Amino acid sequence: MTANFSFQRLAKCSQTHARVGIFSTPHGVVETPRFMPVGTLASVKTLTPSQLKDTGAQMILSNTYHLHLQPGEDIVAGSGGLHKFMGWDGPILTDSGGFQVFSLSKMRKVTEEGVTFRSPHDGKIIELTPERSIEIQNILGADVIMAFDECPSHISTYEEVEAATARTYRWLERCILSHKRLDQALFGIVQGGIYLDLRSQAVVDLEKFDLHGYAIGGVSVGEEPDMIRKIVQDTAPLLPVNKPRYLMGVGTYKEMIMAIASGMDIFDCVIPTRWARHGTAMVKGERWNLKNAQFRRDFSPIDADCPCYTCQNFTRAYLSHLVRSQEILAYTLLSIHNITELIQFTQKVRNSILNDHFTKQFAQWLN
Amino acid sequence: MTANFSFQRLAKCSQTHARVGIFSTPHGVVETPRFMPVGTLASVKTLTPSQLKDTGAQMILSNTYHLHLQPGEDIVAGSGGLHKFMGWDGPILTDSGGFQVFSLSKMRKVTEEGVTFRSPHDGKIIELTPERSIEIQNILGADVIMAFDECPSHISTYEEVEAATARTYRWLERCILSHKRLDQALFGIVQGGIYLDLRSQAVVDLEKFDLHGYAIGGVSVGEEPDMIRKIVQDTAPLLPVNKPRYLMGVGTYKEMIMAIASGMDIFDCVIPTRWARHGTAMVKGERWNLKNAQFRRDFSPIDADCPCYTCQNFTRAYLSHLVRSQEILAYTLLSIHNITELIQFTQKVRNSILNDHFTKQFAQWLN
Repeated sequence: MTANFSFQRLAKCSQTHARVGIFSTPHGVVETPRFMPVGTLASVKTLTPSQLKDTGAQMILSNTYHLHLQPGEDIVAGSGGLHKFMGWDGPILTDSGGFQVFSLSKMRKVTEEGVTFRSPHDGKIIELTPERSIEIQNILGADVIMAFDECPSHISTYEEVEAATARTYRWLERCILSHKRLDQALFGIVQGGIYLDLRSQAVVDLEKFDLHGYAIGGVSVGEEPDMIRKIVQDTAPLLPVNKPRYLMGVGTYKEMIMAIASGMDIFDCVIPTRWARHGTAMVKGERWNLKNAQFRRDFSPIDADCPCYTCQNFTRAYLSHLVRSQEILAYTLLSIHNITELIQFTQKVRNSILNDHFTKQFAQWLN
Repeated sequence: MTANFSFQRLAKCSQTHARVGIFSTPHGVVETPRFMPVGTLASVKTLTPSQLKDTGAQMILSNTYHLHLQPGEDIVAGSGGLHKFMGWDGPILTDSGGFQVFSLSKMRKVTEEGVTFRSPHDGKIIELTPERSIEIQNILGADVIMAFDECPSHISTYEEVEAATARTYRWLERCILSHKRLDQALFGIVQGGIYLDLRSQAVVDLEKFDLHGYAIGGVSVGEEPDMIRKIVQDTAPLLPVNKPRYLMGVGTYKEMIMAIASGMDIFDCVIPTRWARHGTAMVKGERWNLKNAQFRRDFSPIDADCPCYTCQNFTRAYLSHLVRSQEILAYTLLSIHNITELIQFTQKVRNSILNDHFTKQFAQWLN
């Protein structure tokens, strides 16, 4: 742990593993628990950095896989790094590309060395190894970088997942050796599929290294909610208490509450911006399609309790009109609201833990 | 002229008809000459009102035809009028729908009474008359409303244009009789196609009414630049000097300078936002396609002299990346720049007239 990073636990729930912390990075703090908006291609879709700041966003996520393909890390570096490139002066986390290589790319070949795949842009063969992923992330310059991991498919056998988890550990060693920047925190990723023994072994292995933080990966895609719950409930409490814990790709009310109760701290998910582009507002855990006839003449804001620019200035009728007209402004205004909604939610959870009201206040989501 | 509106001429160019004015409306002033951004469907495409305000926008334009079809004027009225509906507290102008009925609608039938056409939304027959257009505009509640006119096609014969111009005059009388709100200024529209005698007769006819302002219509579509120039140069100086003059649908550097030299005051055009959505930046009268390879590694702002949010915070390389990635943020950032560019341009022209440097400073555009 270098002086550039610290994680302080400020409070703990008396009945669950839920906790409140402050994670300090070179570009500012992350008050945990906290939702992180996703800016895959160095843009949180439809939002300017100024609009994003107003949602309460602290750390945001960007994608190594996507940025390597377009514009390429050299162009980001030429701009002075990812923060300057995209105009975001707060903390940034880049994932390693592992998940995307395994979920998005075609013609994939995995060896002990790494993964080769065809670029979806120009068909060129691209090789991503632990060393190369870390090198790219060092060049991009995010505050938090992620280890390059092998993500087994959710239909893999026990033996396949076991082999992938063991390889992820060997790859982590290579990631640590190739990581060059003290102003970037490297987080390890717990894999292990649906097999709780593999997950706990992965935690034991990861803890051999004094990493800046730990993530649980491979739970967001293809798994049943009950299985996600079981994995997180079993795995999270095993992680070091004095380090930030990141649950990758999860961001619904129910999943976040469950994960927070298990001791997780940070979350990311594309749904607030993706749903916004489908004309959907997130309201207190519900989804509202603004195109529905009931909103056409509804002159109230989406959520009168919401402090966001959208709710302070526009009616459901106006948003419904914009969605019906396929006006881009609809997607911007709904993205502002949806991200604010999730960040406000994690802030309320945080306050409830500080006051030790967590299990009472969020009882409806805990069961 | 009611107390709600006034137009003051503050200065005049010593060598041309160019002039500087202040047009006061119930929602604020318009410092002329000035470019007006277009918000067809109660949204200046991709921009929040807050971003729009930062471009220097004063009066914006919205479309009666489009708003009547979607969401319908009753829903706008239910929100407390167009200003509240779209969250814009500055001046708004609505056009009458005349131009759109004649340029966009199918199955059109024109009689002395008005125009009937099929709704492109649901195929229903819609009738738009002078009375109905004014009624809708009274309900929408813009500061400036436009007379309902017959726009002859640019391939019409002299006799057809003559008949349309005469009908536009008769329709203006009906517009004036049906206009009910003192807090809205009704502008008349000079038609007459490419026939200068019809244009001057139209001016004489319009001046019989003490309207709040006068527009030149029917010059933006299908005409040669030389013909537009000739029409504006011949017609503008005939208009009353003590009223604002609006050249409809025109917004390039060259056309605006020519029109300002002829004594026109306000302008609107969809190109800054439309080009933005095509990845094109407007820079000092040029068009730059940000997708071009030359911008990929160009770490300077679009225009170092431009005060807009985009130029103050982002490089051409970042914008090129966003355009290549089809990120919606590209269209927002380019719309901010392009609108700022045109408004800044009209502001510079305004200052040059105040200092009587207009013909010298803008000589390159005057010839």
